[in-house]
Amino acid sequence: VERITIIGLGLIGGSIGLALKAASLTGIEIVGYDKDAHAAGDARRLRVVDKSQRSLHSAVRDARLVIIATPITAVRGVMEEMAGELPEGCVVTDTASTKAAVMGWASELLPATVSFVGGHPMAGKETSGVQNADADLFAGKPYCVIPAPDASEGAVQLVTGIVQLVGARPFFIEADEHDRYVAAVSHLPLILSAALFTLVRSSPAWPELSSLASSGFRDVTRLASTDAELSHDICLTNRESVLHWLDRAVEELGRYRELLQEGREEELFEKFARAQLDRDTYVTAGPPVREPVAAGEPLTSGEQLAALLVGQRLVRRVRGMGKPPENRQEGGRRRGAGGRDRP
Amino acid sequence: VERITIIGLGLIGGSIGLALKAASLTGIEIVGYDKDAHAAGDARRLRVVDKSQRSLHSAVRDARLVIIATPITAVRGVMEEMAGELPEGCVVTDTASTKAAVMGWASELLPATVSFVGGHPMAGKETSGVQNADADLFAGKPYCVIPAPDASEGAVQLVTGIVQLVGARPFFIEADEHDRYVAAVSHLPLILSAALFTLVRSSPAWPELSSLASSGFRDVTRLASTDAELSHDICLTNRESVLHWLDRAVEELGRYRELLQEGREEELFEKFARAQLDRDTYVTAGPPVREPVAAGEPLTSGEQLAALLVGQRLVRRVRGMGKPPENRQEGGRRRGAGGRDRP
Repeated sequence: VERITIIGLGLIGGSIGLALKAASLTGIEIVGYDKDAHAAGDARRLRVVDKSQRSLHSAVRDARLVIIATPITAVRGVMEEMAGELPEGCVVTDTASTKAAVMGWASELLPATVSFVGGHPMAGKETSGVQNADADLFAGKPYCVIPAPDASEGAVQLVTGIVQLVGARPFFIEADEHDRYVAAVSHLPLILSAALFTLVRSSPAWPELSSLASSGFRDVTRLASTDAELSHDICLTNRESVLHWLDRAVEELGRYRELLQEGREEELFEKFARAQLDRDTYVTAGPPVREPVAAGEPLTSGEQLAALLVGQRLVRRVRGMGKPPENRQEGGRRRGAGGRDRP
Repeated sequence: VERITIIGLGLIGGSIGLALKAASLTGIEIVGYDKDAHAAGDARRLRVVDKSQRSLHSAVRDARLVIIATPITAVRGVMEEMAGELPEGCVVTDTASTKAAVMGWASELLPATVSFVGGHPMAGKETSGVQNADADLFAGKPYCVIPAPDASEGAVQLVTGIVQLVGARPFFIEADEHDRYVAAVSHLPLILSAALFTLVRSSPAWPELSSLASSGFRDVTRLASTDAELSHDICLTNRESVLHWLDRAVEELGRYRELLQEGREEELFEKFARAQLDRDTYVTAGPPVREPVAAGEPLTSGEQLAALLVGQRLVRRVRGMGKPPENRQEGGRRRGAGGRDRP
């Protein structure tokens, strides 16, 4: 039995657990840990994990794959605390919404005998906690994969396999690029949404305003219900990019204001018409196609996942073809090597 | 057969038609008019109306109730053109998203022999046109009712009855108050949504940004798909209130910016936490209760609607109890008078 350990049993960690269990994998055991014993108990009851451990150390001790799904700012502490207990050859990934800070912590804190492959599922909902976990949360969603420079190829394949198993589309990207991009499509919408809600909510006319508000207000303010710790951590770990996009948003609002103030009706109409046309195209046609990079074939069985979990080096060692385990770069450079033969 | 005429067969006019027809009213005929003959043809085919007329004049000539569901800026022209053809005692309503301008046009252009009761259903979707009409569009939604100062009580009851028949909740409000309030809960979200989409769409990194964008971006930008003519007309007819709220939104974004820039983490967290808590309360508990004013009992049959359509004065005249038809103020002051006896 190969062990996958999920650290942090909230909405994301719980949904990964459910999605993995929905794949009915054999030979895989999913272990959970949460510093909140109630969350761990809920996760067990909801069958998000096969079992949970009371200590981080025992949770990661025999793990082939560790998925850190805690709040962003807790990731550093988790890495620090578990570093000494991680088995050699173990693969570590995370689910944090910002990546540069996390990649830095991994490089600084994790031992050279493990591979780190950062991850960020572009999915969520406005309700948090393991009780809102959903096996379909990631279905069809982009899932950023950011391998550390020294991650083995087997580790990248494993994390990519997990991404596909939970139903998401792997999206390979650099950490800095990731943080700049998600500031635009995720963090700025979050702040706009929270600011709109806060503004309207604080009006003395709130009783009337809220009676009149309909689906438009509800949709645009949906992200105001985002877990405040997440919002805060995002701002803290992606400050420059968030500030950049916030400034650009204020500029853009200024352009609307100017057209409105100066009665430049035709230009205002054109601006709305362009937005309508472009968004309709985006929603109908989807984003411009960007091929997943080296995603490989999706995993279709627990055996394939187990093979990835055991890892290429171990597979070779078992077969008597092994290189010394510490020679991890070698495995990383061999493209296409894995548990299966390829033509 | 009493005639209800819908002028403007788009999403809103079409949905009102469908909702009225879903109520299976007997003795009511729904006539449509659209200056676009294709839209009128579609409306007939989709059974949104019983029949359509080729001219505005013939459409309104025998109507008991005229519902103007055109774009806002077209309302004035419709009123001007149909004014001379409206039967005495006819009730006119509209569905425009701003009300002060419309109430002014009605007062200026409609004859004293008809009653105007402004309306604004707080419902919509990001797709327009009669082909997207939906009988359930108004279900449970607030529907603003703004009687002209000289509207008869029967007219108010009739429009309120229609509001309830299409499944909405009547919300009585003054025109100026309406425009200030919807600027906050409807027009500001629209501009924020369009500005966010426009900003991100115009980035050179759009191919990557759009690949990464997920449900959050999609929801917050949903209103960017609003019909551009509607967005433009709203800005044009509610300029001062929209500017007011736009300025306040920029101020609010500035507060987030300041906390972020100055690293005031605790305050930032508190701001997000307050927004999360308040929005969750709003979504779970709904708005503070505000009782509908004088909404009366919901209509439950076509006969009741027909009685309202025929109107109190006509009912009395038929019964030989009538006042002269031009004495419309009298009817307007008698509370509770209608087609039915009340205790």
